Formats: sequence, structure tokens, C-alpha cells
Amino acid sequence: MEYPQESFLTTVFTPDSFWARRRQLVRSNTLRHQLQMLKQTGRYEAFCLHWHPRYADPCTVWPVPNHLFWDSDVAKWIEGACYLLADQPDPEIDAAVHELVQMIRGAQQPDGYLNIHYTVVEPGKRFTNLRDMHELYNAGHLIEAALAHHRHYGTDGLLAPILKYVDLLAATFGGGENQIPGYPGHPEIELALLRLYRVTGNKQHLRLARFFIEERGNPHGGTARRHFYDVEADARGERPHERPMYFPLPRSYWYQQAHKPIAEQETVEGHSVRAMYLLTAVADLVRLGPGDGEIQTTYRPVLTCLWANMIEKKSYVTGGIGAIKQWEGFGLDYFLPHSTDEGGCYAETCAAIGVMMLAERLLRIELDGHYGDAMELCLYNAVLTGMSLDGKAFTYVNQLASSDTDLSERHEWFECACCPPNVTRTLGFLGGYLWSHTVTEKSAVVNVHLYTAATLRLAVGESTLEIAQQTEWPMEGNVSFTVTTSGAPVAVEVRLRIPGWATDWEISPAPSSLDVRNGYLYLSADWVKQHGQFCLRCPMMARISRPHALTRQPVAYVSRGPLVYCVEDVDHPWEKNHFKDILFDTKTLLREERRSTPDQYIAIVAEKGARGSLDNSSWLSKIVAESCYKIRDGEPRDLCFVPYYLRANRGGRGHMRVGLRVDVPT
Amino acid sequence: MEYPQESFLTTVFTPDSFWARRRQLVRSNTLRHQLQMLKQTGRYEAFCLHWHPRYADPCTVWPVPNHLFWDSDVAKWIEGACYLLADQPDPEIDAAVHELVQMIRGAQQPDGYLNIHYTVVEPGKRFTNLRDMHELYNAGHLIEAALAHHRHYGTDGLLAPILKYVDLLAATFGGGENQIPGYPGHPEIELALLRLYRVTGNKQHLRLARFFIEERGNPHGGTARRHFYDVEADARGERPHERPMYFPLPRSYWYQQAHKPIAEQETVEGHSVRAMYLLTAVADLVRLGPGDGEIQTTYRPVLTCLWANMIEKKSYVTGGIGAIKQWEGFGLDYFLPHSTDEGGCYAETCAAIGVMMLAERLLRIELDGHYGDAMELCLYNAVLTGMSLDGKAFTYVNQLASSDTDLSERHEWFECACCPPNVTRTLGFLGGYLWSHTVTEKSAVVNVHLYTAATLRLAVGESTLEIAQQTEWPMEGNVSFTVTTSGAPVAVEVRLRIPGWATDWEISPAPSSLDVRNGYLYLSADWVKQHGQFCLRCPMMARISRPHALTRQPVAYVSRGPLVYCVEDVDHPWEKNHFKDILFDTKTLLREERRSTPDQYIAIVAEKGARGSLDNSSWLSKIVAESCYKIRDGEPRDLCFVPYYLRANRGGRGHMRVGLRVDVPT
Repeated sequence: MEYPQESFLTTVFTPDSFWARRRQLVRSNTLRHQLQMLKQTGRYEAFCLHWHPRYADPCTVWPVPNHLFWDSDVAKWIEGACYLLADQPDPEIDAAVHELVQMIRGAQQPDGYLNIHYTVVEPGKRFTNLRDMHELYNAGHLIEAALAHHRHYGTDGLLAPILKYVDLLAATFGGGENQIPGYPGHPEIELALLRLYRVTGNKQHLRLARFFIEERGNPHGGTARRHFYDVEADARGERPHERPMYFPLPRSYWYQQAHKPIAEQETVEGHSVRAMYLLTAVADLVRLGPGDGEIQTTYRPVLTCLWANMIEKKSYVTGGIGAIKQWEGFGLDYFLPHSTDEGGCYAETCAAIGVMMLAERLLRIELDGHYGDAMELCLYNAVLTGMSLDGKAFTYVNQLASSDTDLSERHEWFECACCPPNVTRTLGFLGGYLWSHTVTEKSAVVNVHLYTAATLRLAVGESTLEIAQQTEWPMEGNVSFTVTTSGAPVAVEVRLRIPGWATDWEISPAPSSLDVRNGYLYLSADWVKQHGQFCLRCPMMARISRPHALTRQPVAYVSRGPLVYCVEDVDHPWEKNHFKDILFDTKTLLREERRSTPDQYIAIVAEKGARGSLDNSSWLSKIVAESCYKIRDGEPRDLCFVPYYLRANRGGRGHMRVGLRVDVPT
Repeated sequence: MEYPQESFLTTVFTPDSFWARRRQLVRSNTLRHQLQMLKQTGRYEAFCLHWHPRYADPCTVWPVPNHLFWDSDVAKWIEGACYLLADQPDPEIDAAVHELVQMIRGAQQPDGYLNIHYTVVEPGKRFTNLRDMHELYNAGHLIEAALAHHRHYGTDGLLAPILKYVDLLAATFGGGENQIPGYPGHPEIELALLRLYRVTGNKQHLRLARFFIEERGNPHGGTARRHFYDVEADARGERPHERPMYFPLPRSYWYQQAHKPIAEQETVEGHSVRAMYLLTAVADLVRLGPGDGEIQTTYRPVLTCLWANMIEKKSYVTGGIGAIKQWEGFGLDYFLPHSTDEGGCYAETCAAIGVMMLAERLLRIELDGHYGDAMELCLYNAVLTGMSLDGKAFTYVNQLASSDTDLSERHEWFECACCPPNVTRTLGFLGGYLWSHTVTEKSAVVNVHLYTAATLRLAVGESTLEIAQQTEWPMEGNVSFTVTTSGAPVAVEVRLRIPGWATDWEISPAPSSLDVRNGYLYLSADWVKQHGQFCLRCPMMARISRPHALTRQPVAYVSRGPLVYCVEDVDHPWEKNHFKDILFDTKTLLREERRSTPDQYIAIVAEKGARGSLDNSSWLSKIVAESCYKIRDGEPRDLCFVPYYLRANRGGRGHMRVGLRVDVPT
């Protein structure tokens, strides 16, 4: 069972290309910047288990202490560092990894337990609040860090203590006598345990992951035959109407995807990162397929159903998911406001990373371009926008439009700092997202999901297969492929994802017939053998799209290739209302402008595209007005669109909008 | 200081006219039906203070016991009955009023206390939870019932015990030593105390109302110098994160309009009925103007500001207010979804009644047609829709569109039954809303706010002034006035509200010049003397309007005169999605159809007005689609609109929609 966190090693990004530049930035700037942040904030030395004054801070989001995720912040940084160190050595980063690992080892309790909060701040209370306290979430990230560390260094410096911790967890949790029949409020350990199982082959690791997945949301769990979170809350002495900040109503267990068993869920609900991590684990379980096929029969339809619900009804044009701030997650079907003043638009960076994770797994279950489209969309928009061009500033929320209360801006770190190191580790193993492959002794099948200048190098039997992509993607859509083999001949079937937005693509040389299935162009081994070089052309032109009619968003978007565009105040005369009142004439000429500062990109200018403004002045006559639409006329003016990922990088006052108003009063 | 609850006695509705028929229905059906409901549910005998099994029911909305409002249900029924008994005697209703009054008298405790819950269910806990427990709200309704009873019967059978209760409250609440520095979570007693003060002249009644109004939201109240609800919650042993169901977050005191002092509030927030009752009391305080003018200086701008915020940004085309179900109240500016599946549309009947109350008070402070427009809009739409044509079934929530989870339907009663008797009492004193007047020894000024067939009869000195309106309003817009005086001549100035929707009105005979100020046509005493008969013509034609652009509702409404229209499934071939997918061509002919079953009304048929349907089928390609709007074509078909107040009266399956989709994909 392949994971991108491992297969990325087969990919080399072409120097100076789009992603090579960004990954270089992560190596040179981001890792160092985040290391500095870890040190400044107390996280770096937290595993030394000294008291930190911040441990006494009141919870920003009750009942979750602000420092509760520190373990995972460190773990994700280690994980990302280990992926990036595979590119080239870096003594400073290397030393920090070693020191952190030593501290983590030192933090382990005699019985294997390993958690900062419950060792330093609330000793004796471990495993008393799985619903809220991120204990097992932290454990999951430690497992993932240990796997990356083990792969990179080939030692068990981190893996050994983590395995000891997992032994404790496996002994603690389950349906057996004297076991806790619980599961984590924030999924993560499930997918980590399945990755671990692949390395260790230890059936306890698989068992524990399955238990966490399958017991989740059981209304009659444990010997109490009740919902575990109820039992647990009672045991803590929690009162029925005492509820976490993120619960709009009592027992809002849908927040944790625990309102019913996963097998019975029909819509994607609650905290969006949790949902993605959980479903990724479910997909991994399906891929692994233990037992008699029942896993597949039960969970494949669930994956299909929840994915469709999410993509069709609960995701943004950028790929972002989760409209609602209070629970950082999904709202009603088609409830997709664009900004805080419209009622939401959370679209957390980690959630979009989660969509990529899930899409990648689903592509391995079923090669379907819809998954690849979503993966590409998230990568270039909702994820990439999460990091600044210098790699030192980040976003947590990725709204589609700013408002006075939420400007479009970046921060060097967050109190809850899940997103920054998540971007780091994702870019660390990005190569693993580009393609998937199956290899036999003499043949290979390579599915190309993402296009960028990079080379895949695979051992096939005694031979070595190389597939190189040359392209300026996402600036332009020509991709030249070169397939070479050294050693004995290898039969190579190549399948190229045809992006859904590419309505006018072509392949050359042209095959006698095009074999396109579910969004992939299948190039047979024979054809590839004849054509060691071929070129896919997906012309990129500015295009206009509109959200689904049931979202009731009277706006149009500008996109180009995989990129969604936005307008920013820095490119325009000052508009005081975040471009909310502008009317966009989509019929105007969309002119491309190639720019090279602060980075290479293509701006799109809608010449005289802003035709007027909504008149939002006093409106006391509304109850009687023939038409409440009023337009202030004025000289039409240009609108300048830039890639959404570029936002909040070039100065300005934080006014930004993706979808511009298009409806016309009649 | 005039109140419509008293001035209604000067109005006689013309038999068989629109409102006369409805008020007759209330007398013959509604009062009896509601009396039966009071008896069936245990409310009727509740003041006997026996235990009722329902007292043990779990709270539907914690921490509010389901029976907590029973006192007020009974009080509002008595109040309504007393208004309607003024029309004509009714021995059965009369007997029930007397019996209820006897039971209320018997329920009073030796110290004057009078409340069912805290006498029977939680004795000893009185006044320990003003925030949630409706104790003072119930007291307010008892006061209003006592005033109506006192006026109708001329006895103090109910007023005397209520005055004793108020004495206890006045001793209990205030800023003095040993007084509770609190105020009710649900305003009502404030406006009741001010009405009471006008009758009693007892300064304690004014003082207590002022204290409740002015202390509200004080962050440094009482000797504790803290917010009263915090102090009170601590005293109850409530935990910081224990919160009522209607609090989305801890300390959501905006729910009760207690997040800051009223004088500092700039937007209308929270539970919409509470907001209206509170602001009505504030308006009454301004009208009363005790002290040195500071009240006016402080609160008049607040009233103007909050009214404008509500009408411009937080109210529906029907006059309904309050989008959000969880707190039965206001959402963000311009957040006005039309149905549950769009995120809300509560528009509680009581809240629209509250808008009428507030508008009526504001009209007395400042004669401005905007207030009259809102009052008329609510009356004919958001309020009138709250009762069925037979007067025996009601709505609580008045959404603009049905959905599968919330059909358009009526119920004979509710667990929380505030709305049905509120409609009863409102129609009981409806005459008081039609006009306001000031009378001196020899002259009168009459402001006509609402048009209907009715006669105003006023004593002016020794003379009697009569102003009769003849009209078929709201079916047609011609209103003939006849002004007659018996006895000595009276100088009568008449001011006619020109409805905002009447863009093409005329008055005949035509005055030499039209004196229109703030939406009222001023007819001088001289002119009226010359023209004892005159006619206002406000042509009623079907018209199309659209919601404010910032609501982002891509719909159009059909209205005619003061009536907002809707479509219902009973008039159409079956549409499975609540008319959500239909595209409405507003350019089609709107044909009027006069109907007489089940009541007289004018239907509006948009011939071939339904042009197609949105295609809401699977949409996995959205992330790449050029346009996500798809229309299923089909034979254009007629749309039949009926007045919104008529909905859910003529069979059908509960599918209904006010605003139909009009935006056209481009």
C-alpha cells in the first residue's frame, strides 16, 4: 500500500520550476522560521516537561487549553523536516530534529505515556476527555513524525519510544475488559496507525485503528451501552448543559463526526479537518481491506457519498471547505457565504490539505479525474494561499472575500498553529501527489495526476524508468513528456489526467484513437514505446464561472487553468467596501498580463470590467420599492485579477474578493 | 398618553367588511377554541395551584420549563376577551373570564406574589433566575390583562391583586439596599408598568419600569459592580460554560438585549420579540418623557437607529423579523434566508405583532409614513398569516418558503403558545391601530394610518365627530371618507397616510395644493369643512419587487397594495422542490383573478410565468464548469400567486414560496 509520504522520494523537481522554487523556499526560510517560532513560543522545549507560564492561560476555546496542540506542532515540524532533508542535507535543521527527538524520548513516562499536557499540567487525568483534549490527535502526529524520521534516518530513535507509546494505547483502548471503549475527538491517530501498520505489520496497530474508526459514534458503546462521550462526560462530572465553545447546542457530536457510526453517515458534517482526517483513514482502511471484504462493502459507498456531498454542496471554488467559524466546519448544503459579513467562509488551510489527502487516497481506490481535479484545485488555491511568498507568514482561514472584521492578511504564527507546519510537511512530500504507479518485474503503470516540471524515477526489475515532465504549469498548459528506460525494456502504460477545466486539450503525436476513461487519457504501453516523447496541451485562458445556483451567490469568478483569481486593493483605486458593491461585467475583454514581481504570474485585467456600484445608501423605502436594486453609475474602470494564492503578499490594506457581483437589476 | 388598547373603543368596524369579518371570527371561533385549548392543556386551572403532570416534563429548551409561560397564555386570553367583549356580550366567554380571575385571585400568596411555577414547582426559588425564567414577563401580561379587565368591567377584581403583586415587585427590585438590581430576561413588564402608571399615577410603577429599562445591560450593576446576569448565575451555582439552549456561545446576553445598556446599542440584536417589547417600552418612556428631557435626548436616537437597522437590514418583505431559529431572532445585517434549508427564516408571529406595537408608538412620537407602512405590512402579512381563515389554527414561524423539514402548515396550539392569544388580543383592539387623534374643546386632528371600512366616533367638547371610511381595502384602493359632526362645529384636520407602495395616488376633490409631509397628506380643517366627503384613491396593481441587493436573494416578489403574495402547491401541478427550482419570468402578464372561496381575495396569475427549472442534478464538475447554471427547459406554465396571509388554508401538501427565482444564467 503506497503512501505519498514515501513515494515522493521517486520524484525530483526540476530546479527553478514553480514547485522547486517554493520547496527551496520552505527549506531555506520556512523550516527555519517555524523552528524559531517553536523556540520563541515555548514549544521547542516543551517536551522537557518544565512548567511554562502559558500553561496557566485561560482557554481561548473552552475546554481546550491553548497549549494542548504543542506536541503536534513539534511533531509536524519534525515530519516536514525529515521530508525536506531528503532533498539535501541541512546541519542546522538536522541538529534541531535530533535535539527534539532527544527531548521527546526524555518526556516518555515509564509506562510509555507521552503527552506534554497530561504529564505537566494535569497529571493523573490522562484519557479522561477524549472528546475535547487532543491527546490521541497528538499521538497520531507523533506516529507520523516517527515514520518520517525512521524513513529518513533509518534509525529507531523516535520510532522506538513511539512504538512503546502505541503499545500502551493498544492496551488501553478497545472493547476488551478493562479497556476504554473510546475514540479521539479529533481523528488523526487512525490514519497514522494504518501507516504504522504498513511498516510494522503489527496487527495491534491495525486493530486499534479499526476500533477507533468503527466504534466512533456508536450510540450503544461499551458496557454502559451508551454513547462514549456521554459516559465520559458523566464520569468527569460535566453537567448536561455545560458544553464546549464549538458546540452550538448540547451534545453536538456531529462536530466530531460522532453523531452516528461512520457507516451510517450520509452527509459530511462538523469540523472539516476532523472529517478529512477521519475519511482519509477510512479510505486507507478500504485500501488495506482487512478481513472478508466487508470493509469495502461498508465503507466504499460512505466515501463516495460523503465526498460527493462535500464537493457538490459544501466546498468553495478554491477547493476550500467549511463555511462556519464556530465549529470550523461544514454548514447546510449550499450554504457557502464568501465572507464573515455574509455569515462565514472558514476554509481552513489544514482542511484543504485534508481534501488533498483524501483525494489522493480515493484516486488510488478508483482512478477518477474528479478526485484529481479537487486535489489540484486545493493545492494551487486553498492550500498554496496558506503560505506567503517568502515562506514566513501564513493564513489559517481562507475566506473568499475580506470584510472590516476579517481583512485578508497573514501572520507569522498562530496560537493554534496547526496550519503552518501542515503546509511545510505537505510541500515536503509534494512529489508523492504528482503521480501514482504500480510496478511489476517488467512493466509499469504510471498515473499522472498533477503537472509540473519534475522527473519520476522508478526501479522496474533491474531497469530504471524515468518519466520527465517539462512545463511552465500553472502559467501555461503545455506539458512535454519524455519516457526513458535504462536497462532491459519496460512496458510503460501512462495515464494522464485531463483537467476538468481543459475543454480544448490535445495530445501529440495524436493516437489513432483517444482512450479517455473517467477523466484520464490512457496511453498504452505500445503507444508509449513508440512515442518516447509526447506532449499534452491544455490551453489556459481566462474563464468565467459561476457558483451553483442554489448557493444564491450572484457572483462570477475568474479562473485560468487550475488557478482561481481574486481582486486586491493594491491593484485598484481605493474601494471602501471590499469590492462588495462593484458590478462586474463579465462580457468585457479579459487581457492577460505577464508579471514577474514579486514572483512570476499572470494577471488578468478586465478592461472597463467594473461598470458601476450598488447603491447601498439608506433604504427605508424597501417595503414598497418596485426594485431595490440601485446602481450608481460612473466611469467604467478596469478590474485587475491576480491568482488567489498570491493574495496578501504585495502590500495594500487587506481588501480582497474572489467572486464579483454580476447580477443586473431588471 | 394614548394607547391603542384604549382608543380602539372609538372605532366601529363596518359589518361584513374585511376586518369586521375576521374579528367576528375571533369572537365566534377563536376565543372559544383557545379557551378549549387552555382547558385541555391544563392552563385553565393552573392558577388553582394543583400539581400538573406536565410540570415534570423535561425542558424542550433548557432551562425553560415548558409550562413556564402558562400564566401569560391565560393572561393574554383574558386581555383579548376583554377587548372583544366590548363589541358585544358573550355569556360563555364572560363566565370564563370571571372564573379565571377568581382562580388568579386565589393563587396570590399572602405577600402578593403571583406565579404558578414558583408557587407550585419551585417554591422558594422565586426571583433567582430573571435571565431565563419569564417570571416578570408573566407579571407583565397579568398587568395588561388586569388593565383590560378593569376597563371593560369597571371593577378591580383583577386589578387589585395585580396591584398588590406590583407593590411586591416594586419593593423587591431596584437600586436600593436589600433590593435586587435585576431586570427581566424577556421584556414585557416594562411596557405593562408604563400602561399601569397611566391609570394609577403611582410613581412607583414609573420608577420600576424605568429601573428595568435603564439598568438593563449595565456591566457594572448593583453592589457587585458586575453584570447582573453574571452575579445571578454565580449565585445559582451555574458554571461558566453551562448555557441555555438559545445561547450559541457563553454569555450571549445580546439574546436578551442586555449585552450593553440600551442607550449604547447601535444595532437590533437577539430575540426579536424581546427586542420589540423592550423598544415599545422605551418608546412609551420617551412619550411619557419624565424628568428633564434627558430621556428624550438619550432614547429617541436609539429608537431611530435600531428601527432603521431593523427595517433596512433585518426584516423580510412580509414585515417579519428574526431570521435565526436558535435564538428566535436577528442575524447579521442582510442575512435574510427564506427557508430552513437556506439557513433560517423565523419571523415569529409575536415578533411581527411587536413591530406593529413599536410602529404605533413611533407614529405617536413622529408622524412618519415609514412607521405606518411597516405597521400595515406586518398586519396584512406577517401577522394575519398567523391565524387560519377559520380562526382555529395558527402559525408560530412565518417562513417565506417551505422546505421538507418545515412545511407550510398550521397547528391548533403550541407547547409554547405565545402567538395564538397574541393574535387574538391584537385583533381585539385593532381599531386602535387605524387612527390616532388629538382633541381639544373645539377641534380635532385625526391621523389615519390604516384604511378599512370603519367609523371613528369622538367626543369633541359637547359635539360628536364621526369619520367614516368606506373601502374594500386590501382588495381595492379607493377609500371614501365622510366627516360629520353633530352639535357645535368642530375644526377637523385630517392627515391621510399615503402608502409607500402607492406611487400613483390621488385625492378628490383635488385640493389646490397637496401638503404631503413624511408620507402623510395633510388636509386642513378649512378644506375638510368644505369637503365633508372626499376620496383617496391608491390604485392597487400587481407589482414586482426585489429584495435588497446585499441580501443576495436572486428572487422577485409579487405584491399588490399592502399584500405580499406567495405560490402554493394547491394551485399548481406538483413541483417536488417547494418551487425552489422554478425560474420566474417577471416580464409576463400578471392577470388578476377575483376569487370568493374560501374567502374573497384576488389571485394573481403570471401567465406562462414559470419558464424553466434549475437543474440541480449532480454537479461533480462544478470546480471546472464554465457556468454552473443549468436550466431545464420545458413548456412555460402559469404561476398562481395568492396573498401570503391565505397560505395553508386551502389544502395542499405544504409547499409554498414567496420569492421566486429570477436570475438568468448568462
